[in-house]
Amino acid sequence: MVGTCRQILLAELPEGRLAASNFRIGEAPMPTPDAGEVLLRTLYVTLDASNRAWMQGPTYRSALKAGEVMYGRALAEVVESRAEGLKPGDIVWAETGWRDWAAMPGARVGKRPRIDPLTHLLSIYGISGMTAYFGLLDCGRPQPGETVVVSAAGGAVGTLAGQIARLQGARVVGIAGGADKCAWLKRDLGFDDAIDHRAPDLRARLREACPLGIDVYFDNTGGEILEACLAEMAQHGRIACCGSVSTYDGPSPAAGPRGVPGLIVTKRLSLTGFIATDFDDRRGAAITQLRAWVESGRLKVIEDISDGLESLPEALVGLLAGANRGKRIVRVASP
Amino acid sequence: MVGTCRQILLAELPEGRLAASNFRIGEAPMPTPDAGEVLLRTLYVTLDASNRAWMQGPTYRSALKAGEVMYGRALAEVVESRAEGLKPGDIVWAETGWRDWAAMPGARVGKRPRIDPLTHLLSIYGISGMTAYFGLLDCGRPQPGETVVVSAAGGAVGTLAGQIARLQGARVVGIAGGADKCAWLKRDLGFDDAIDHRAPDLRARLREACPLGIDVYFDNTGGEILEACLAEMAQHGRIACCGSVSTYDGPSPAAGPRGVPGLIVTKRLSLTGFIATDFDDRRGAAITQLRAWVESGRLKVIEDISDGLESLPEALVGLLAGANRGKRIVRVASP
Repeated sequence: MVGTCRQILLAELPEGRLAASNFRIGEAPMPTPDAGEVLLRTLYVTLDASNRAWMQGPTYRSALKAGEVMYGRALAEVVESRAEGLKPGDIVWAETGWRDWAAMPGARVGKRPRIDPLTHLLSIYGISGMTAYFGLLDCGRPQPGETVVVSAAGGAVGTLAGQIARLQGARVVGIAGGADKCAWLKRDLGFDDAIDHRAPDLRARLREACPLGIDVYFDNTGGEILEACLAEMAQHGRIACCGSVSTYDGPSPAAGPRGVPGLIVTKRLSLTGFIATDFDDRRGAAITQLRAWVESGRLKVIEDISDGLESLPEALVGLLAGANRGKRIVRVASP
Repeated sequence: MVGTCRQILLAELPEGRLAASNFRIGEAPMPTPDAGEVLLRTLYVTLDASNRAWMQGPTYRSALKAGEVMYGRALAEVVESRAEGLKPGDIVWAETGWRDWAAMPGARVGKRPRIDPLTHLLSIYGISGMTAYFGLLDCGRPQPGETVVVSAAGGAVGTLAGQIARLQGARVVGIAGGADKCAWLKRDLGFDDAIDHRAPDLRARLREACPLGIDVYFDNTGGEILEACLAEMAQHGRIACCGSVSTYDGPSPAAGPRGVPGLIVTKRLSLTGFIATDFDDRRGAAITQLRAWVESGRLKVIEDISDGLESLPEALVGLLAGANRGKRIVRVASP
């Protein structure tokens, strides 16, 4: 193909909080697939808090540098194929970056089924779903009757982790930003209680909501919320360390929460870090279970979709400020 | 019996570092056992860093208050018994506190065999041995060829945890205070390497000593040493959280280590807190294994014994400053 495609660059590394002005939209020559490559049209880009962490330094991947096309993962459609096993019209999961067209080796994309809605491949059957499922069940291990607390409870992972905990027979308390979001968690998603993390004295609110202590804390935030939950954990409690969104949007990590390691010892807690892809060998079984819950109406999938490549910077900035409900996705092109 | 006994009171709660002057020696009427009680003569008092933590607030026990007899655990001899199943001459493990005579319910003491040396009941077959054994094997789970780092490596637990790790086929690096202690760990206890935590740039020294990263970190210290080890952990590393001696000797806990929870997530670490008594149901099997190692000369038991009830305050202050090698015990009376 000829012509140009659009892409969004990280123009400069943010100092402090990320702003849309840290990005710049640009044009590039239309990519052409080499032998073994496919030409992809980007359909849906997934937005995740970890996108911000990539700017702080190496994580499970190398650090993002100023001037690079913003990393990003997307569902895309194969438009032209010079790779074995892939043909035009195939839907794939790929590290396209924030651009509307990309050429990449067929070996680096993963074919996906054309389900309806396609966005479920990014939410419930994608990394958010796998993160909630394995983090909660393998690291948190909630038992019926236990108390589970989920932070960033209104987000892509939190909405699922909380509902899955209820499906295990646990009592579930969400922590989220704002009274509206808290009311929504209780009303629409069946959370037993929800706490606004902006309210004063989070620890007192946790104590009220969890009078017997927290058995499982699914931690999406780190920072002060982790510190408060550590102090309210029950003996032999488990903390599933999923991420630390409270620390991503700023300079390099600050001091950790008080009580580490003191409370870990005295309460005999376990903290376990995990990344969904560690469980790839059990992905099929997880999808089967999640699909059964979704199709029977016991698990609601909340998606928050906006339109247009150019909306990506604002969508990420808003995500970091907690503006989303459920899985934030940007539709770059319709399938 | 008539007359008086001696006891040591925590005269005032320390502000900052504990000093011998925070204690006061006093006399009390000789205790008399009621029905169901035994009169105990204190033989050996065990000193542990956790003694200091009791002054900071509630831990796994209620907080120590100014004016109270200092809590303490000891081996004692039954001198008079009004309790079923206990007779004069029996050796027991009891929460006598820092006093030379104590009366307490028979139900609250634990009978022990008269082994030689008796002090092994406090070190290798006592809480230090159980702590090293279960913390390392159950929480750390070292595999042959892995790299294990032990902090406070010259202490009661550290000397044992390091040697047990070597017996599992791991490569063992100790962290201790001072070049002499480090040399001793390598020469006498078979540590593969030892790092002086007072040397500048602990992280660089850890990187040299553990070029493939740390698979298991047995953390006795918390604080800056934990922070440095977190940064040098290998992927899927395990941290056995045994205590945080670096934070006990001061006011209430400061901020935690940087990298919590960020590094826990990106490296998929697990941190597990434990207390030896959680494993009481498997104590017999642990003792059998430890005795086999000790009797075959493969595990050295290091004890650091001083004399006299009045030496307890200095013994504890010295322990917190790392003056001991191995298990610090004060002999209050000879058996």
